[in-house]
Amino acid sequence: MKKSLVALAVMAVSGIASAQSSVTLYGIADAWVGSQKVPVYAGGNGLRQTKIDGGAISGNRFGFMGSEDLGGGLKANFLFEQGFNIDNGSQLVAGQMFGRQSYVGFSGGFGEVRVGKMWTAYDDINGAANSAFDSAFSPNNYVWASTGYNANPGNSLYYASPDLGGFSGAFSYSLGENKTATVKAGNVSSAHIKYAGGPLYVGLGYQTEKTTGNATRAKFTRLNATYDLGVAKLLAGYGRFASGNERTTDWSIGADFPVSSALTVSGGFARSKDNAAAGNQRRTGVGLATMYALSKRTSLYAGVQTSKQTNSNSKGSLYAVGVRHAF
Amino acid sequence: MKKSLVALAVMAVSGIASAQSSVTLYGIADAWVGSQKVPVYAGGNGLRQTKIDGGAISGNRFGFMGSEDLGGGLKANFLFEQGFNIDNGSQLVAGQMFGRQSYVGFSGGFGEVRVGKMWTAYDDINGAANSAFDSAFSPNNYVWASTGYNANPGNSLYYASPDLGGFSGAFSYSLGENKTATVKAGNVSSAHIKYAGGPLYVGLGYQTEKTTGNATRAKFTRLNATYDLGVAKLLAGYGRFASGNERTTDWSIGADFPVSSALTVSGGFARSKDNAAAGNQRRTGVGLATMYALSKRTSLYAGVQTSKQTNSNSKGSLYAVGVRHAF
Amino acid sequence: MKKSLVALAVMAVSGIASAQSSVTLYGIADAWVGSQKVPVYAGGNGLRQTKIDGGAISGNRFGFMGSEDLGGGLKANFLFEQGFNIDNGSQLVAGQMFGRQSYVGFSGGFGEVRVGKMWTAYDDINGAANSAFDSAFSPNNYVWASTGYNANPGNSLYYASPDLGGFSGAFSYSLGENKTATVKAGNVSSAHIKYAGGPLYVGLGYQTEKTTGNATRAKFTRLNATYDLGVAKLLAGYGRFASGNERTTDWSIGADFPVSSALTVSGGFARSKDNAAAGNQRRTGVGLATMYALSKRTSLYAGVQTSKQTNSNSKGSLYAVGVRHAF
Repeated sequence: MKKSLVALAVMAVSGIASAQSSVTLYGIADAWVGSQKVPVYAGGNGLRQTKIDGGAISGNRFGFMGSEDLGGGLKANFLFEQGFNIDNGSQLVAGQMFGRQSYVGFSGGFGEVRVGKMWTAYDDINGAANSAFDSAFSPNNYVWASTGYNANPGNSLYYASPDLGGFSGAFSYSLGENKTATVKAGNVSSAHIKYAGGPLYVGLGYQTEKTTGNATRAKFTRLNATYDLGVAKLLAGYGRFASGNERTTDWSIGADFPVSSALTVSGGFARSKDNAAAGNQRRTGVGLATMYALSKRTSLYAGVQTSKQTNSNSKGSLYAVGVRHAF
Repeated sequence: MKKSLVALAVMAVSGIASAQSSVTLYGIADAWVGSQKVPVYAGGNGLRQTKIDGGAISGNRFGFMGSEDLGGGLKANFLFEQGFNIDNGSQLVAGQMFGRQSYVGFSGGFGEVRVGKMWTAYDDINGAANSAFDSAFSPNNYVWASTGYNANPGNSLYYASPDLGGFSGAFSYSLGENKTATVKAGNVSSAHIKYAGGPLYVGLGYQTEKTTGNATRAKFTRLNATYDLGVAKLLAGYGRFASGNERTTDWSIGADFPVSSALTVSGGFARSKDNAAAGNQRRTGVGLATMYALSKRTSLYAGVQTSKQTNSNSKGSLYAVGVRHAF
Repeated sequence: MKKSLVALAVMAVSGIASAQSSVTLYGIADAWVGSQKVPVYAGGNGLRQTKIDGGAISGNRFGFMGSEDLGGGLKANFLFEQGFNIDNGSQLVAGQMFGRQSYVGFSGGFGEVRVGKMWTAYDDINGAANSAFDSAFSPNNYVWASTGYNANPGNSLYYASPDLGGFSGAFSYSLGENKTATVKAGNVSSAHIKYAGGPLYVGLGYQTEKTTGNATRAKFTRLNATYDLGVAKLLAGYGRFASGNERTTDWSIGADFPVSSALTVSGGFARSKDNAAAGNQRRTGVGLATMYALSKRTSLYAGVQTSKQTNSNSKGSLYAVGVRHAF
């Protein structure tokens, strides 16, 4: 970048507010070249497709965020974040300006409150023990039933506690706002508690979803633990999905290996078992990926992921190399 | 915000233009929690819905704007402004990148000219005497027929005069661009004149709309006046809508009370009468809201609004508390 | 511009990346008032429409771009660019956040690589000899068949060589990613070579497109040359489109006249001949435009363009005055 940069004037232009302030513009550009076969059991056509795509490590996004110090440790915060597909420029969610998150709230000694659309408390911990960088190369892809949870419902309140000796928790609640004369409104209710101290991390998350007040309640549970040995970080997770008589349980193990200060290799295995209407099914997934940091902001990556449903012998896989740049 | 900010390079990258410049990134984040019942006569289902929503005081938005000094008092200006719903991230108008305004133009001693999509001259003065901060708590909601005007049509030219001893005016004209072999193009024509000096504000606006050249012309008139006594600011407005044989007249009164430097309470009453095809109707609305400024940019608010159509005894109401943050 | 600007904090907020960086926010605002008749043979209704529209000289856009120095001459780059219609705020391509370009890549001594969605190598040179500023006033409008090429397909790789004594080239390849059990995936393949040295520019571009692997391949060729005499810059181009038995050839001539440091006039003539199914057709176009620079970033413009299909005697034209502002 040129040294003679011109600063950006960031001024509030609305009626009441007139103070100058600052805002953070940030984002991620992540693109890859590779080959993918989405398994038939997961809605694919079972054909291998050569692809230029994006977001294997981190979903492509840009956002505006800011924080205002109100004194006494209290801050007002906002974040507007759009997700998009770098391979064709399309919006993450059609018609949504900020398809990932859009919220305003406060933070301080009491923790943090957010109002709007944001990741649920369950989502906060869901991928914490997911090997291969919790990415498109992670073993859980097309294996976990619990990836079907609503990760960022709208009409939401979110509260995160402060850290108390390594322990913290969060809760979020989302309104369906779809009450009719005969049906109550749906909702999404989500919570997690976690401990992070020294080499150990343990997180437990729970989320329930009702599309309407009369619908069957879907329940998602996840328990994740990681332990950093230095030479490797061990990852293990257990999940459970229940809705009416349907049950799915899954578990996964894996490890991150910091080969050098720039190079990390991570891989693992995931398995699930469900009693879905289509008959009892077992699915397994294997994932392996490596990231090479060219700088703190830019990394090259390569990875492979395979998944299989045992009964149907339906398989899928992904091979890709790519680049991830954060700004 | 951190002191060690990194400046933003803002460079023109197009063919001819190559000068460095600055651009303003601004916006509003406004979210609330409350309960709303949209009246049946206004298209609601008449049920009370618990809601997490946004934009009660000010519509959620972000924008880019800039101004270049061309010398001799002449400036080139642009503004691109997107509106969105903070509760779910959706675009204000589906498919519109800048659903609020997008224009380029000039300003100087002659006033200001804008070309593109912008608020009409009528819209400039429409809410000036609207109590409860011209918000979702204002008494006019579901009462005025004249809230049905097109506030920001596309294909528009706008001119605002300079201030002449307190007097100023504006005019805007919007093309329908929908001419066919048998039908002329529609248009929106809009103007206001206003006086603002000392404690007194008086504004008169007029707007006509034809969806096509053959359609009936809809006419909107509004006269607003406010007087600031110091202890309170008095608000009064009168409006009229006419289209063919249809007529609606409305009036409203209210006041803003600056309780302290941080706390303002505002409330009022609105009434309308129309001779719509469904029979003569009277509607009344009451609104009361309070804003507490935590800083120049961040306020907490609370408010209530009720509306009623007399003949049908159809009612609606809104109760909400929220936060509004400008950046 | 104001001196007392507030700097913008631009920080990476994602997991791995945490370094501060800078990003460029840029754009163009271009709006005009005029009259247009889109010819019937080009899908218009043949009626003259008074219009307020935009992008006559340059398409309206905003974008975020950045470049990180990785050392040794290597840079990581990204660019996200949205196009929109300034007259109504709508997205250039419905549902696309970045309808013009969105890519990430590297540049260095080897040239530049981009991955994502970007202008094809053919598009890089297509307008280089187009008089009237390669704009809505250029003679090619509604004349060239080759304006029907896909200028920025998704799922793309792009490589541009470094400049070697005035010579350079580029190549791009785009995947259809639409393979089915019976049909191979389509693709777009595009290349150019060019020489730019002293007063002379010569560019040759070639692009082929298959919507699916079984579709007929469309082939676009263009040869452009310009020569700068100082008092005028001469422009000449030749193009060819072929798809199955269909053929179109076109040529154009024109010149840019720098009347003063601020004022440039440009105009030219274009002609095409095709053997389309509807019978052999000849089309001619004439364009003339002038730009007056108020500053490096802001210009006023005026122009006229006419086009005609000889056999059907179907005509179109555009008359407009406007402003173009870059930031």
